Amino acid sequence: MKNKLVTLLAAAIGLTAVGLASPDLKARQTVQTEVLDEIKQQVSQSTLSYDIVESLTTEVGPRMVGTPGADLATGWAVAKMKSLGFDKVWTEESQAQLWQRGDLTASITAPYPHKLVAIALGGSVGTAGKTVEAEVAYFADLKALQEAPEGSLQGKIAYVGYRMERHIDGHGYGKAVGARVIGASAAAQKGALAFVMRSVGTDTDRIGHTGMMRYEEGVKKIPAVALSNPDADLLENMLRRDAPVTFSLNTNASGPTGKTVTIANVIGEVTGAQTPQEVITLGAHIDSWDVGTGAIDDGIGIGIVLAAGHYIANMKQRPARTIRVILFAAEEIGLVGVRDYVAKHQDEMPRHMLGAEWDFGNGRIYQLEPGVGPAALNSVRDFANYLAPMGVSLAETNTAKGQSDMSVLGEAGQPAFNFAPDGLDYFDYHHTENDTLDKVDQDAIKVNTTIYTLFAWYAANSGVDFRL
Amino acid sequence: MKNKLVTLLAAAIGLTAVGLASPDLKARQTVQTEVLDEIKQQVSQSTLSYDIVESLTTEVGPRMVGTPGADLATGWAVAKMKSLGFDKVWTEESQAQLWQRGDLTASITAPYPHKLVAIALGGSVGTAGKTVEAEVAYFADLKALQEAPEGSLQGKIAYVGYRMERHIDGHGYGKAVGARVIGASAAAQKGALAFVMRSVGTDTDRIGHTGMMRYEEGVKKIPAVALSNPDADLLENMLRRDAPVTFSLNTNASGPTGKTVTIANVIGEVTGAQTPQEVITLGAHIDSWDVGTGAIDDGIGIGIVLAAGHYIANMKQRPARTIRVILFAAEEIGLVGVRDYVAKHQDEMPRHMLGAEWDFGNGRIYQLEPGVGPAALNSVRDFANYLAPMGVSLAETNTAKGQSDMSVLGEAGQPAFNFAPDGLDYFDYHHTENDTLDKVDQDAIKVNTTIYTLFAWYAANSGVDFRL
Repeated sequence: MKNKLVTLLAAAIGLTAVGLASPDLKARQTVQTEVLDEIKQQVSQSTLSYDIVESLTTEVGPRMVGTPGADLATGWAVAKMKSLGFDKVWTEESQAQLWQRGDLTASITAPYPHKLVAIALGGSVGTAGKTVEAEVAYFADLKALQEAPEGSLQGKIAYVGYRMERHIDGHGYGKAVGARVIGASAAAQKGALAFVMRSVGTDTDRIGHTGMMRYEEGVKKIPAVALSNPDADLLENMLRRDAPVTFSLNTNASGPTGKTVTIANVIGEVTGAQTPQEVITLGAHIDSWDVGTGAIDDGIGIGIVLAAGHYIANMKQRPARTIRVILFAAEEIGLVGVRDYVAKHQDEMPRHMLGAEWDFGNGRIYQLEPGVGPAALNSVRDFANYLAPMGVSLAETNTAKGQSDMSVLGEAGQPAFNFAPDGLDYFDYHHTENDTLDKVDQDAIKVNTTIYTLFAWYAANSGVDFRL
Repeated sequence: MKNKLVTLLAAAIGLTAVGLASPDLKARQTVQTEVLDEIKQQVSQSTLSYDIVESLTTEVGPRMVGTPGADLATGWAVAKMKSLGFDKVWTEESQAQLWQRGDLTASITAPYPHKLVAIALGGSVGTAGKTVEAEVAYFADLKALQEAPEGSLQGKIAYVGYRMERHIDGHGYGKAVGARVIGASAAAQKGALAFVMRSVGTDTDRIGHTGMMRYEEGVKKIPAVALSNPDADLLENMLRRDAPVTFSLNTNASGPTGKTVTIANVIGEVTGAQTPQEVITLGAHIDSWDVGTGAIDDGIGIGIVLAAGHYIANMKQRPARTIRVILFAAEEIGLVGVRDYVAKHQDEMPRHMLGAEWDFGNGRIYQLEPGVGPAALNSVRDFANYLAPMGVSLAETNTAKGQSDMSVLGEAGQPAFNFAPDGLDYFDYHHTENDTLDKVDQDAIKVNTTIYTLFAWYAANSGVDFRL
């Protein structure tokens, strides 16, 4: 009933009717052309999303939880959303664990001394004011480390040399990141003094990749650091020779401090004209690592979803449903902000109709995978057909649960669209000093912003219940 | 007379006769095929030159004048040349000025604070134990800085934003490097407190490019630093806004210390069998900057010329002339080692018959430009014809004076071959932390080593006087 009503209303006021089970395909497509084409034409010419990334990276920069940049970013986002014409803008505060990077020096001390470029993993403890120096034990990957005999790493530094693979969908990350997350505790269980790994990254820059790690309960906490890929090569070239290789590490990374800091999700809404209680979510995360300026991760996402909200807020027609743009806090340290969001919005979760996140950088979208109810698929196919000339194919599967932060909303029942961009270069910059504005593809971000704006409009006005 | 004799000798023992003005082209080409093809087949299969770079970068690493690595490199090179079968190996010591980099921090302090990635230019003074903080004055290039009114930079930090162009022959370097060399004194003459510039480099990495600068006599010495390209972008984006931008710099770079350190050219010879007093030189430089491991600049050169010497030393036939491989010291800080070489070898300079340097990194050789006497050109054309199937064209000009160190030998009268490799990526890594082994193109170095070995053999056995 509700859907029928929305359909009638939408038709009455000339809204797009993509996805309605209309018998008159031609008439329906005419409506698409009128509204979606108007969005497409306007957005695809605009540099707004790039300008937003420029503003964020220039006026704020890095914004790791617990740093001044994180608070600056909150203020920046509120002001930006207001200036972009959102109907409502607010923040939702919660608490996250504080971790501090401090300084770090790493070197090979024998047989051939070299200073190394390394970076502490997020959450790592330091070396307690001392320098740890020990022989390196090499492991090809996490599994090999886990299979090392008990006690075999006593007095040694464990090194995992697994090299991340480059793939368009970034699935090399999943194969590599396990060592980062649980490698330190795996090494500590065998007696290691410290855990060193090849950066989880596809570049060849003398820049380390950070990222979150976790200590297993009851296992000794040892320092965890990543070498830049060229430094990992150097270490491995040395290990291939006969002599033992000794490694020296000094870091005052804080480890778990037990302290918490206030974080804030920043939320902006374009209120729906027909069913404002029904929410379409567009997500990105506002925090970044402290290295780089977080242009790629996730400045681009912020640019895309704020721009999409802006365009829809400024259309003559109002969206039927509410479009809610959420900049989630503390994504990098474990999806903290979105969990708080779900807890706070439990009551309205059933009215979260559909969501999409942008947290995968630069490339052009090549695929849309839905995660919707079967009755909604016809409409999704119509929308995908509309996107097809922009190079977007519809995945054969319908299993999307939401990307990054949105995965937590997916667990909470929100249907999702996963847009897959070409991620070939994403892990060149991910979590590094190299994540800066110049890496943003100014053509691709226009196309992707256009698609997200089309998505938001479609989702808000299709009248489809994406859960059914 | 001498040349005729060599010709006859060469013919008698089956040496290649490339370049002899033989009326029987076919017979001559048969000789080419036999000896040069043998070299080509052997060398093009071998990884020796890459293995040498691997050894140097792993066992020595960076080797800036005045650092322990420089002395390590001397010992490494002597041992390597001996193990490679050179007939004679020796060092020639001299003195070079000591400069020490120290530490550096740079940041934008207003209107939006950012830590910056910057690097002191070679030779720069420091900030005398204090932090220099001042408003930034922007200049598009060195010329604009030089045209600033007298006194207009009083109390300011001068910034030159010129962005190096990428070209296959690297000529963008010449257009950009002037600011690096004389920008500090140009800024000081207008009253500036410090000189900051966009790195001379074509990359977009968060890594600064160092390189030598010079202070003008009688002008106040002010600190000179280069920003990484992304940091230069950030600074310029901020300068485009309305508010004044203030910059903070702290460096304890030593400036000219007045102290000298011992440097050493390392020289290895394959002694000529017919006219050993006639010398063919193959050059590269043994020093590097302290950042990176000097794989590209000039580890590749060292790998190529040592491998070329090795192959010829191990041929059944001995070269007619002597092949002298010279690893010049202190190239980076102003061609110091080669000047000492010329001074020490003044007497035998007239018997330096032809030379070639490798100091341009990675790319495949696409061109040969000679700088020889007109009578030698026919022979050079024949040799170039032999190389043509390997993708090497002969330049229309005959004005080569020698590259890098060899330019000083060129000034001293030595004829030269300038081999031009594709240098499109050279300035991505030049003088940076990113100059590491993984950047070495393992296919290209085989081809280039083959060409240099062919060159050495040809030059040593052609019998041509390249000065005539």
